[in-house]
Amino acid sequence: MMNRKLRMGMVGGGTDAFIGAIHRLAAFMDNQIELVCGCFSVNPEISKQSGKLYYLPENRVYETYQEMFEKEAKLPEGERMDFVSIVTPNFVHFAPAMMALEHGFNVVLDKPITFTLDEAYQLKEQINKTGLTFALTHTYSGYPAVKQAKHMVAEGRLGKIRKVYVEYPQGWLSSKVEDAGNAQASWRTDPKKSGKAGCMGDIGTHAHQLAEYITGLKVTELCAEINVFVPNRLLDDDGAALLHFDNGAKGVLMASQVAAGEENAVKIRVYGEKGGLEWNQHEPNTLILKWIDQPVQILRTGTSLDAPAALHNTRTPGGHPEGYLEAFANIYRNFALTVRAKANGEEPTPEMLDFPGVEDGIRGMQFIDTVVSAGYNDEVKWVKFGDII
Amino acid sequence: MMNRKLRMGMVGGGTDAFIGAIHRLAAFMDNQIELVCGCFSVNPEISKQSGKLYYLPENRVYETYQEMFEKEAKLPEGERMDFVSIVTPNFVHFAPAMMALEHGFNVVLDKPITFTLDEAYQLKEQINKTGLTFALTHTYSGYPAVKQAKHMVAEGRLGKIRKVYVEYPQGWLSSKVEDAGNAQASWRTDPKKSGKAGCMGDIGTHAHQLAEYITGLKVTELCAEINVFVPNRLLDDDGAALLHFDNGAKGVLMASQVAAGEENAVKIRVYGEKGGLEWNQHEPNTLILKWIDQPVQILRTGTSLDAPAALHNTRTPGGHPEGYLEAFANIYRNFALTVRAKANGEEPTPEMLDFPGVEDGIRGMQFIDTVVSAGYNDEVKWVKFGDII
Amino acid sequence: MMNRKLRMGMVGGGTDAFIGAIHRLAAFMDNQIELVCGCFSVNPEISKQSGKLYYLPENRVYETYQEMFEKEAKLPEGERMDFVSIVTPNFVHFAPAMMALEHGFNVVLDKPITFTLDEAYQLKEQINKTGLTFALTHTYSGYPAVKQAKHMVAEGRLGKIRKVYVEYPQGWLSSKVEDAGNAQASWRTDPKKSGKAGCMGDIGTHAHQLAEYITGLKVTELCAEINVFVPNRLLDDDGAALLHFDNGAKGVLMASQVAAGEENAVKIRVYGEKGGLEWNQHEPNTLILKWIDQPVQILRTGTSLDAPAALHNTRTPGGHPEGYLEAFANIYRNFALTVRAKANGEEPTPEMLDFPGVEDGIRGMQFIDTVVSAGYNDEVKWVKFGDII
Amino acid sequence: MMNRKLRMGMVGGGTDAFIGAIHRLAAFMDNQIELVCGCFSVNPEISKQSGKLYYLPENRVYETYQEMFEKEAKLPEGERMDFVSIVTPNFVHFAPAMMALEHGFNVVLDKPITFTLDEAYQLKEQINKTGLTFALTHTYSGYPAVKQAKHMVAEGRLGKIRKVYVEYPQGWLSSKVEDAGNAQASWRTDPKKSGKAGCMGDIGTHAHQLAEYITGLKVTELCAEINVFVPNRLLDDDGAALLHFDNGAKGVLMASQVAAGEENAVKIRVYGEKGGLEWNQHEPNTLILKWIDQPVQILRTGTSLDAPAALHNTRTPGGHPEGYLEAFANIYRNFALTVRAKANGEEPTPEMLDFPGVEDGIRGMQFIDTVVSAGYNDEVKWVKFGDII
Repeated sequence: MMNRKLRMGMVGGGTDAFIGAIHRLAAFMDNQIELVCGCFSVNPEISKQSGKLYYLPENRVYETYQEMFEKEAKLPEGERMDFVSIVTPNFVHFAPAMMALEHGFNVVLDKPITFTLDEAYQLKEQINKTGLTFALTHTYSGYPAVKQAKHMVAEGRLGKIRKVYVEYPQGWLSSKVEDAGNAQASWRTDPKKSGKAGCMGDIGTHAHQLAEYITGLKVTELCAEINVFVPNRLLDDDGAALLHFDNGAKGVLMASQVAAGEENAVKIRVYGEKGGLEWNQHEPNTLILKWIDQPVQILRTGTSLDAPAALHNTRTPGGHPEGYLEAFANIYRNFALTVRAKANGEEPTPEMLDFPGVEDGIRGMQFIDTVVSAGYNDEVKWVKFGDII
Repeated sequence: MMNRKLRMGMVGGGTDAFIGAIHRLAAFMDNQIELVCGCFSVNPEISKQSGKLYYLPENRVYETYQEMFEKEAKLPEGERMDFVSIVTPNFVHFAPAMMALEHGFNVVLDKPITFTLDEAYQLKEQINKTGLTFALTHTYSGYPAVKQAKHMVAEGRLGKIRKVYVEYPQGWLSSKVEDAGNAQASWRTDPKKSGKAGCMGDIGTHAHQLAEYITGLKVTELCAEINVFVPNRLLDDDGAALLHFDNGAKGVLMASQVAAGEENAVKIRVYGEKGGLEWNQHEPNTLILKWIDQPVQILRTGTSLDAPAALHNTRTPGGHPEGYLEAFANIYRNFALTVRAKANGEEPTPEMLDFPGVEDGIRGMQFIDTVVSAGYNDEVKWVKFGDII
Repeated sequence: MMNRKLRMGMVGGGTDAFIGAIHRLAAFMDNQIELVCGCFSVNPEISKQSGKLYYLPENRVYETYQEMFEKEAKLPEGERMDFVSIVTPNFVHFAPAMMALEHGFNVVLDKPITFTLDEAYQLKEQINKTGLTFALTHTYSGYPAVKQAKHMVAEGRLGKIRKVYVEYPQGWLSSKVEDAGNAQASWRTDPKKSGKAGCMGDIGTHAHQLAEYITGLKVTELCAEINVFVPNRLLDDDGAALLHFDNGAKGVLMASQVAAGEENAVKIRVYGEKGGLEWNQHEPNTLILKWIDQPVQILRTGTSLDAPAALHNTRTPGGHPEGYLEAFANIYRNFALTVRAKANGEEPTPEMLDFPGVEDGIRGMQFIDTVVSAGYNDEVKWVKFGDII
Repeated sequence: MMNRKLRMGMVGGGTDAFIGAIHRLAAFMDNQIELVCGCFSVNPEISKQSGKLYYLPENRVYETYQEMFEKEAKLPEGERMDFVSIVTPNFVHFAPAMMALEHGFNVVLDKPITFTLDEAYQLKEQINKTGLTFALTHTYSGYPAVKQAKHMVAEGRLGKIRKVYVEYPQGWLSSKVEDAGNAQASWRTDPKKSGKAGCMGDIGTHAHQLAEYITGLKVTELCAEINVFVPNRLLDDDGAALLHFDNGAKGVLMASQVAAGEENAVKIRVYGEKGGLEWNQHEPNTLILKWIDQPVQILRTGTSLDAPAALHNTRTPGGHPEGYLEAFANIYRNFALTVRAKANGEEPTPEMLDFPGVEDGIRGMQFIDTVVSAGYNDEVKWVKFGDII
């Protein structure tokens, strides 16, 4: 019986990084996971210094992830890490993830899953082969109210879905901050580090994943326009797409990083034959239900959500707002519950398994490929997603 | 000197109609206009009965609009109507408007201006020839906060405009209410009465006009998808378009009448290089300003709006909410002020002239033609608006 | 049969005044009332000039209200005014109202009804004696959503009412604007013109009336603290009271004119054993219903309000926001419908009679007397309202 | 140098408890604290089972807190707990807290601090004597936007403070749930376990602390009415108080647990001579600033907050909402930083020391004493707080 906290290693996430800190907050909150080792930076000094601040012994802070996987794999079971959290820029996703899997470690990976779609398929193959557990941190699907939305659509409460609006406006790339020392901007706008899409890869994939998660539908094809508004930027900082879903529903996806003054305003609206729903990340504990023939209802996390997955992922009673970190933590917690269940020879429950995985990652890479193919042209056209996995 | 209320006649707007009542509320509010005659229905009984309820003498209630224009034209100046308000379904816009102009009457007309673009051009020619005053009731541009938005964009406060999101979701046509005795739905979904577009003509035109009004930009081309969701409906009940503006800005326009549970949720967001703005008709006295480098600001009608056109069109101090009828009344009031100024040989001020006119009407018909051409196809393509007037 | 518009005279409301313009907008909107005469200012020049701008013949613009009542009373029935709208500062309410009643004219009066409670009783006696119709413009009870709230409380939907929070914060008197030429501030802060209370008379009475209107309960006693925050101001600019209602419910009433930065943020919350409701004038078409055991519901004017009084007082379909002027107009419209019904020997319906009257005026004066008695002391105490009428 | 996580013990917080889970989430999130021992329940079975689920070795799960303090005190420095978190009902606050201090342990304690004011003074004396660190979990002052509010008031941005409205409506005690097996309700409504106040002790103290924290003012006296609405309930479930602050400002405090349908709607508004501010826990990352002479501003956590204490307590960039658990975690984190700094012989910074302590606890007990004295009477009176510490 695994009756202890899961042991996490980390690749990336030094004290100079952004998303690594988020991952750690999310991982530790529920007292299910402890950090035991890491390779926190390509700069060994930063890595070492970070390890000290994260209260690690010096011998568990590694100079390279390769070294980490090799050495950790040789540690006894009662000591070595159980999984690795990889929180590097996109171009350093595939190699450490693949190597971790090859060395028998479960993996949590930041999105988008890889640099290319093909790499994503390779990861999937390796995951299938090893039976290891893999999570992809599409955070927005971690919110209880989003899970409630998914549940209500699945139950047919809205009727057949007709229309989806999903949007993700940000404003932080309104000027060329990548030239002004903004490290986050710098790699995200560099096609060598980010991949073939900028805005569409960074946040468009979130919007796409959220739409498919809630509706349970798949986008089959899209037309799009992708824009580079800031002069001399190397990747798209804005875009919009018209979507076709596999049940005949239509959608609009909007993502922008030059929507000046916007923070991180993820929002989705879904309309069916009987009613509609709306969710805004700005106020993530509220799910608005709109009906053809009765008053609008406001469902609230901790108060009136009743979907099993919503309840399972709620920590506080109503009126004690949960936020982004809790949504993030839901991914880690469910991942940990799944790893533990498997370690104990138990079947993970559907609630445990409710975290984004390699299929979401592949869908995301397909989205990037498709939207880039459709949207980077003078002409506009419908482009199919290819085979839906 | 014209020192009296303007005299209004009305075509349509019987007691069984919807928009006519709105026009009257808007027209009367400011004590600048009085109803003196009308032909309120094709049904003479309804017309007669309506006239009585509107406190008209029997001899000023006409059986046909033709009779009205002819007889009114023969009345002495101190008695005959000054202008006609035409509030009939789309297919009865052109003929009465043209006849009114030919008989020397100024015209207020509900949108969309005509059944075809060509008719709109004919109206424009007649207006130019006669010098008469013509207003088109694109209500949303009548709100003070919208006028403030236009002013701030024009002043360059947001910097060069990059992105426009405009949306107009409604849900009232989510089921086939046109078969269930809903008169409003019935003619709006009938191509013989409504024209070649349903949703796109009825509310898409409002969204398009609002975007062009606020930004001062013109849409040059668009791609679109237009949908008919409710089986056996004869016209579109939903659609979305990607827009190109003449300064290089990009936009997304969404309009739906099957967004189940939505009322009339007109909303526009405009982003420039320095900041963004947002306006929702749901709470029309609020203009949200978002900035790259300073806190969000909330401008409020009657409190912090300062554009001349906003102040000119505000009736109440802050915190005494103005609504749709006041926005509508601003069109009537400015129309009346313009007619009066011209009658008195004065030059109407820019504030007086700030109401939608025949150019907005032509733009609307161009929008309908373009979006139908672009959006009613299996293939998607960019379609140009043609010459911008 | 009275089959014509009602003829209104006006006392006060010259072009230099504020509330008179609001009254006219409200009166004219519905095409039920026309202005036929007035005495618009103590300054005859302003009065004359105003009459011209309101399109009145010179002989119907009077130098004094006494002259107006006397001369109008002698005009033939088909010509003389039917009612007078009195929109003067508080100290000029009683005399013209009483004189109007004595000359047989129905009266619309701005609140608070009189300068003293005794005067209010005298008005009531005269109204009873004459059978004339009298309206007091407590605007906030004119909103459809407020009427829905009243209806739901009356129907017992919330269960027995336990708690009422009513608040009315404004900020416009945060500094001594009465010394800076603000005419509205000047008379409102002058005990000779405003009466014994400032803030509590001007807006506290609105809050009190709204609470009693919605709950159907009467305040029986209160304790209070009344404050003068701006140095050398002669009347209260702030206050709060704890309330006891006649069913045992408790309440808190807050009113302030030094809540810096607030516009006119009337808000009420009512809680019963089963649920609660909330209404904000800021967004007046929304009524929020909160329940112990089911999700929050959002009722909306024109969409989901179903109380007869709410429907009767709604002009536009959902999503076409009605505002303050429409709420104000509901008072005028119902007053006019009542006058007309009585003129025609018909029984006015409950919906027609649903406007504030002399009883509301007396309650308001009782509130002022009680809150001043309770709140202008170093000691705090419960003070009874006296007999509830 | 203390270069390791702080070691926490816990009293209370078994798997059947509510607030203990919150404390753990808050404590673990930042990777600064680890749980090393506990006595989680008076029921040894529950305690033992809880310890197992929290991954503790059996020998660190104690049967009584007395045993825990005694045994832990004897463990070597490198092993024994550094502080204890006490999360029991009110009547079990004082004894364990005092014993922990006597055994040299720092303490985190849930509010209200003790059962009686005298006990709070005793704790203060012991804290002063030992120099140990003590935190009280008044969560709402842990939000970054609340800290920004405090900063802006302190900087005089609002001018001299005149008015404070603070409110805390809940609805969960609208019926007699204490008789229906609700454990939380059961002890909270039991004067033997909760103390002399119910609602006022449970949530009124939060409202009071929040008002004093933000304004930097002290309440000097208050008058109040305290109510028991639910029949046969033993303690107050509702109340309101008028407040006098030490700078002459006036306030209104409202707290209710029978505001049916409300969740946990903590809200505060503060008005000064120049402007006002508003904060709602419902959307805790927003601070609304209202000004006499400029537009409303919306400050946002992670985006436009700039107070050092706000920045210090923010974990995520703007638009990634932080919530209740992060506010709670800020108390734990700052407590831990202070303990560590003291252990290392460093002076804790003001940001580290910014967590509620024994003074807040004493103020809370004074509030309870004062409001009960003032509010549980037929007569109403001003009651002084006594000496302000």
